[in-house]
Amino acid sequence: MTPNRPDLKRLFNPKAIAVIGASNREGSIGRIIFERLIPSLRKLYPVHPRESHIMGYTAFAEIAMLPEGIDVALLATGAEAAVAAAEACAVKKIPFLIIVAGGFGETGAAGARLEARLQEIVSRFETRILGPNSLGVFIPGERLDTIFVEHGDKALGSGGGVTFITQSGSVGVEALGLASNTGYGMRAFVGLGNKCDLDELDFLDYFGRDPETTCLAFYLENIAHGRRFLEKARQVTPHKPVLVLKAGRTAAGARAVSSHTGRLAGMDAVVSGAFRQFGIQRVLDDEELCDASKCLAMLPPARGPRVAVLTPAGGFGVMAADYIEADQRSMPLSMAALAPRTVRRIRDATFPFAACENPVDLTASADDGMFGRSLDALIEDDGVDIIICTAFFAPPAISDGLIAEIAARVPRSPKPLITFTQYGPFTDLYLRRFHDAGVVGFPSVSRAVRAARFLVERARILAALKEQP
Amino acid sequence: MTPNRPDLKRLFNPKAIAVIGASNREGSIGRIIFERLIPSLRKLYPVHPRESHIMGYTAFAEIAMLPEGIDVALLATGAEAAVAAAEACAVKKIPFLIIVAGGFGETGAAGARLEARLQEIVSRFETRILGPNSLGVFIPGERLDTIFVEHGDKALGSGGGVTFITQSGSVGVEALGLASNTGYGMRAFVGLGNKCDLDELDFLDYFGRDPETTCLAFYLENIAHGRRFLEKARQVTPHKPVLVLKAGRTAAGARAVSSHTGRLAGMDAVVSGAFRQFGIQRVLDDEELCDASKCLAMLPPARGPRVAVLTPAGGFGVMAADYIEADQRSMPLSMAALAPRTVRRIRDATFPFAACENPVDLTASADDGMFGRSLDALIEDDGVDIIICTAFFAPPAISDGLIAEIAARVPRSPKPLITFTQYGPFTDLYLRRFHDAGVVGFPSVSRAVRAARFLVERARILAALKEQP
Repeated sequence: MTPNRPDLKRLFNPKAIAVIGASNREGSIGRIIFERLIPSLRKLYPVHPRESHIMGYTAFAEIAMLPEGIDVALLATGAEAAVAAAEACAVKKIPFLIIVAGGFGETGAAGARLEARLQEIVSRFETRILGPNSLGVFIPGERLDTIFVEHGDKALGSGGGVTFITQSGSVGVEALGLASNTGYGMRAFVGLGNKCDLDELDFLDYFGRDPETTCLAFYLENIAHGRRFLEKARQVTPHKPVLVLKAGRTAAGARAVSSHTGRLAGMDAVVSGAFRQFGIQRVLDDEELCDASKCLAMLPPARGPRVAVLTPAGGFGVMAADYIEADQRSMPLSMAALAPRTVRRIRDATFPFAACENPVDLTASADDGMFGRSLDALIEDDGVDIIICTAFFAPPAISDGLIAEIAARVPRSPKPLITFTQYGPFTDLYLRRFHDAGVVGFPSVSRAVRAARFLVERARILAALKEQP
Repeated sequence: MTPNRPDLKRLFNPKAIAVIGASNREGSIGRIIFERLIPSLRKLYPVHPRESHIMGYTAFAEIAMLPEGIDVALLATGAEAAVAAAEACAVKKIPFLIIVAGGFGETGAAGARLEARLQEIVSRFETRILGPNSLGVFIPGERLDTIFVEHGDKALGSGGGVTFITQSGSVGVEALGLASNTGYGMRAFVGLGNKCDLDELDFLDYFGRDPETTCLAFYLENIAHGRRFLEKARQVTPHKPVLVLKAGRTAAGARAVSSHTGRLAGMDAVVSGAFRQFGIQRVLDDEELCDASKCLAMLPPARGPRVAVLTPAGGFGVMAADYIEADQRSMPLSMAALAPRTVRRIRDATFPFAACENPVDLTASADDGMFGRSLDALIEDDGVDIIICTAFFAPPAISDGLIAEIAARVPRSPKPLITFTQYGPFTDLYLRRFHDAGVVGFPSVSRAVRAARFLVERARILAALKEQP
């Protein structure tokens, strides 16, 4: 490692970007990537051997002809050409390269030789490489997006606090694309790809110090510098949650990792134990990674495990209670015993036939205001650590005003408030509206309860870190 | 019980329906229910004390004035009025009443007295009551729908094989509304409500014999005639799967059941053991109930636990392998070892750099035809019992034709084929298109793998039932 490595700030907030392999040809990756970069309003320098202009921008015939001061070069060529281009960019002192092409280490011995040549370039120059086989970066707040496949960009574009770093581009874009339908606040996406140079440790370090990142979410199949990653995480976790989906947790999964990336997945029990010790929260799949990060980015840790459930439908109250108390192997939860004063307040706010013990069942006769007043009572009950609120819009006296009624309580509540909603074809739309109003919501009881467990785990991690500084 | 009870066929395929409390008033439940019945093309008889016509149909001032031959009366009035109307309908010899009103046993002592009066009517007359506090019935194939809240009717309306019987109207409509977004083939919906007369046993018996029902799905908080329900299930399960979500499985859940319905939830361990013994498949929440029933209604049982995974994205292959082998407490699954001939066939059909062992990773360079040919190889491999196929549409050479490519294999495959797909804002749309093409699909790895477990469980139940006839 040379000492004069450039600051990653230039990768995530570049002023000038070169696109090697930019193209006018409809449907080509070089065109899609170039097109996506135009709204970033950065200086763009397409490189093309023959074309004089790419989409109206003056093209450069060779990398050597590019002006000084370029921060990032995107290499949208095939694997062989990318190696040659990478060297030319390094000679040109471009500090960051994003290499999109696959066909490297993940495809066998010939590809591994190409990848070794990239590593050699990194060792000889100050240039750093993201990839190869990387989807690049997406920074909504900077309107900077190099991902050339569908990824729910409109929904993600409003920004947020989660930085999502993924070794698998597909897992990243497919998971985020789905999560964005129901609201997902993203600060940054980084596709690690084959990690020939920059890896999870670099980004844990950078975004761990980034004030706009409130939660870090990783999908990893192998961890390059295990010990250093753990130690860095230990520095970050007192300030913000670090979530890791470490795939390859079974023998079959580990074998699959090895054929996917040519790397070893590592001993799973060791991974779990180390994660716990260093304050990393572990998740098992992409849905859980998105759910947990969404929740941890937006809500405070739970000071205890006692959950109150508020619902207009008794059946969902029963299922929530079952989920809360059934799974005690992972982070345990319990149904809160409401204070007599809380029960009285809810009774006064509702009907004689509402069930005012926990789960609180307002029945299908509930109106928006009853939800609000019942939430106030639960927020002010010291015996309640977490509130799960089921919000249905089918009951006749419930209106869209329920969203504002719940949203108004979130900033005033020192305890986390999680919403569960289903509304037929409008489910995603309403979850988006909740999200836009600052309310964390999920479309199933089990996902809402699972999210609560992550908030309890986060509080325990903070407490444990305090004890062992 | 009197011996001359009418055949439930008249409830589910009525020729003439009276609506007590039908109304012209916009937004009233009596109007919504009446409006929903018009497309059923049955003879409709609104009953209203003052109006001469309801939405153009001649109204009757009193129940006594209704003509003979009415099969079903829908009582869309308040609780008190419903009791009086029920008696008048019984006198009129109307065989089936659906009572929509709440305000009975679920609300306390006064309501319980009203409900007792309904039971007394049932004991004195031949009339049978569904409800009170019931959302009624929805039979897509008959275009018969009494549910007055949003429930994804357009999607459910195309019909299918699952009969869904629920003690909680909310759980039923919210769950089905959500499930219908991604495709759910429903034969019949029955909202049991308070079960003052007709209960789960009646419908298990009826739909157990119904040739159009291929799977029965129940949400129950208490089981009225436990022993008889189990014995009836034992008669049905050799012919079609019976799934039960028995809510109230923890102490907290059981307490919540008691405050929701005033009934006892029963000892949970006993419930689980009995279900196993009598061939009932147990699920834990509404999403699982919908997923499992969708899958069991459309796919054959798995003859064994060996799963092959086909994917264009290595990361999802790894996660699937992890899910398949990690959870061995419930119905165990394993990753199939592919025959050398299968691996060769897949290699010949794809690229040198595709991973042709299980999970088969076609990489993002895959095209539609490679999926099809790989599926053929997996279908013909005797070491594979179940296929999970990840279908992404982001890879450049994948087109919408992939749906037909997969759908063509389903009818030819003696082993179940489950699809997993995610596609950002188009996820639900593509799952619907898969469903309409006869392909069972889910939007997450964990749900696809969970569905596979139900197909293995079903095969084991069939084997066990054969051994103990």
